Formats: sequence, structure tokens, C-alpha cells
Amino acid sequence: MKTDTKTRILEEGSKRVYEKGFNATGLQEILAGAGVPKGSFYFYFKSKEDFGLQLIDENARRHLDRADRYLKDPSKTPLQRLSDYFHDLMSAFEKNGFKGGCPFGNLSLEMGDRNEQFRIRLEEVFKHIKLKMAACLEEARQQGEVPADLDIREASDFILSSFQGTLLQMKVSKTKSHQRVFNLFVFEKLLKG
Amino acid sequence: MKTDTKTRILEEGSKRVYEKGFNATGLQEILAGAGVPKGSFYFYFKSKEDFGLQLIDENARRHLDRADRYLKDPSKTPLQRLSDYFHDLMSAFEKNGFKGGCPFGNLSLEMGDRNEQFRIRLEEVFKHIKLKMAACLEEARQQGEVPADLDIREASDFILSSFQGTLLQMKVSKTKSHQRVFNLFVFEKLLKG
Repeated sequence: MKTDTKTRILEEGSKRVYEKGFNATGLQEILAGAGVPKGSFYFYFKSKEDFGLQLIDENARRHLDRADRYLKDPSKTPLQRLSDYFHDLMSAFEKNGFKGGCPFGNLSLEMGDRNEQFRIRLEEVFKHIKLKMAACLEEARQQGEVPADLDIREASDFILSSFQGTLLQMKVSKTKSHQRVFNLFVFEKLLKG
Repeated sequence: MKTDTKTRILEEGSKRVYEKGFNATGLQEILAGAGVPKGSFYFYFKSKEDFGLQLIDENARRHLDRADRYLKDPSKTPLQRLSDYFHDLMSAFEKNGFKGGCPFGNLSLEMGDRNEQFRIRLEEVFKHIKLKMAACLEEARQQGEVPADLDIREASDFILSSFQGTLLQMKVSKTKSHQRVFNLFVFEKLLKG
């Protein structure tokens, strides 16, 4: 039961922080939405900051599991896996009317300068995502899908930047044209050498 | 005198919105910082929203002037101009301890889903920036600096995404390693064909 209450708070909080940002989201609305009394919140979280950090951890766990499902799928070639991973994320964004985007990217711009604990946690999330992308690209290299001289770590870093910026532009234009351009330059040019 | 007061409000507002975001910035602190009484604010701005939109317009005017100084500099080749333009923006970011970043990118993630007027205004800013980049890349193509078959508009769109995402990663890691990767992939690979 305890776990359920905590999960409800985290899920309700995720949704609201995703819609409005961390600072604009009040504890009251999260607790009301989750149907949980205020006392329970402080049983699970030391403070709103602690809640925010646990929110990042929980979202990161889910996202990294999702990344694994795509990036380690043995039924596809490594580049197909990577392409499907991004396609899935962008399709979910499109289905949501281009609202939301990447919860880690959003929190990065909101909190990166304002809270060192958030910043460190988000940096770790990006590092983990890039390591998973790099492992997939390394397989692609071994199978001859990408040029042998491609620097896998640099490519992962650049692709993550391009992806985050693509989501940012999609959020502003509410169109998917930037997705096509991302696919073209990353998968048809950059990774083909 | 009237113009001076308005300029002071916009400059003080720019600084604070850049540091904290639009929603977290209160009118009181802007007016106190600018040394302007509250009544004056409503003489120049209809509302906080109107102030935010005028803030974007003012920052856009300055940024587009700055872009012109770089991207139309006849003493350099087109690709040198484009490279110097990004280098200058990233150097300013580095000097600021990787705090801040792109004011338009920051507002995009904060406001893109929350205020349609902000979204439209920010979309316009990005369109203008991309048109200026595209004009510079078109010159580069005419001078044989980039491949003849490069789609200039698509390249401008992708480079803007990559740049925004690079700033996002720099804001989180507080290091410039992503800048080197951006330069490598954009100027040594993508634009060299």
C-alpha cells in the first residue's frame, strides 16, 4: 500500500511537471490529483526538491528500460533499432499534439542553472542514454552499417544534441517537418559517412 | 525619457527572465531592479504577457542584428562567418559559466505549450534565424564551400536543432566538450558532404 501511494504521487507529479514545469507545479495540486493527504507526502519525500529528484530517477528508470527494449532488439539491425527508438519517441510526441517533449530536456533548461542536484542528476541521465546509443552504434560498426572510422562516443553526443533540438523546434512549430530533417541528416548522411 | 524607462524595464526583465524563466520572474522584482514605479509599467505594457512578447521582439531584433554582423561579413568566407557566429554565441555562454544559453530556446521549452502568442512569436524568431543561415549557406554553395546538392533549407533547420541541443547539453554538463563535437559534425562532416 505504501508503495502504491508513493507511485501515485510520482505519477501525478510526473504528469503535472511535464505539462507545466517543476517550479510552476504546486504540491497541493499533485496531492489533490493523487488523492493523497499532505502528511503522506512528507512520509515519502523530504521536500519538494527531494520529490523532484526522485521524479527524475523514476522517469530515468522507465526511459532507460524503454531504450533497452529498442536498442537491444535482436530482431533488427542496430541502425534500425536506433531509428525506431527515436521514431517511437517522436511519434508519442506527435500523438500528444507536440506538447511535452522530452521530460529530461525540459527540466534541463528549467533547472540546469538553478539547482545543482537536478543538474547532476540530469547529466547522469544523458550520460546513460548516450552510453546505450554508443553500444548500439558500436554494434552497427561491427556489422558494417556505419563507417569504421566513426567516433561512436562523439556521434552519440551529437545525435543526442540534434534530437533534443529537434524536439525543441517541434514544440515551437507544432509540426513534424523537423523530424524528417533529423532522420535525413542523422541516418542518411552522418551515419552513412 | 519615456523610451529610457521602457528600455530599462525591458533590460532588467531580460536579465531576470534569462536567469529564472518567465513564470518565475515577478513584476515587482523587475520594477525594483529598474527603479521604476508600478504605474509606469502599465503605461508601456498591457500585461505581463504583453511585456513578455515585447521582450521576445526586443531580444529578436538585437539577435538578428548580431547575426547580420556575422553572417554578412564580407571579409570572411560564408562558412567562416557561420562558424564564427556560433563560436561567438557559445563563447559568451562559456564566459557566463554555461548559465543562460539561448533565450529563445529557453522560452520555447518553458512557454511553447503554455501560451500560443509566445509560441507563434518564438516560431517567427527561429524562422528568421534560419533564413539568415540559409542565405549564408547559399553563398557558401555558390562559392563551392559546400556540396552543390546540399538542401540549404533543410541544412539550416538541422543545424539550428543541433545548436539548440548542444546548448542544452552544455547547460547540463557545464562543459564545452559538446561544442567541439558540434563543430566537428556540422563543419567538418555535414557541410563538407
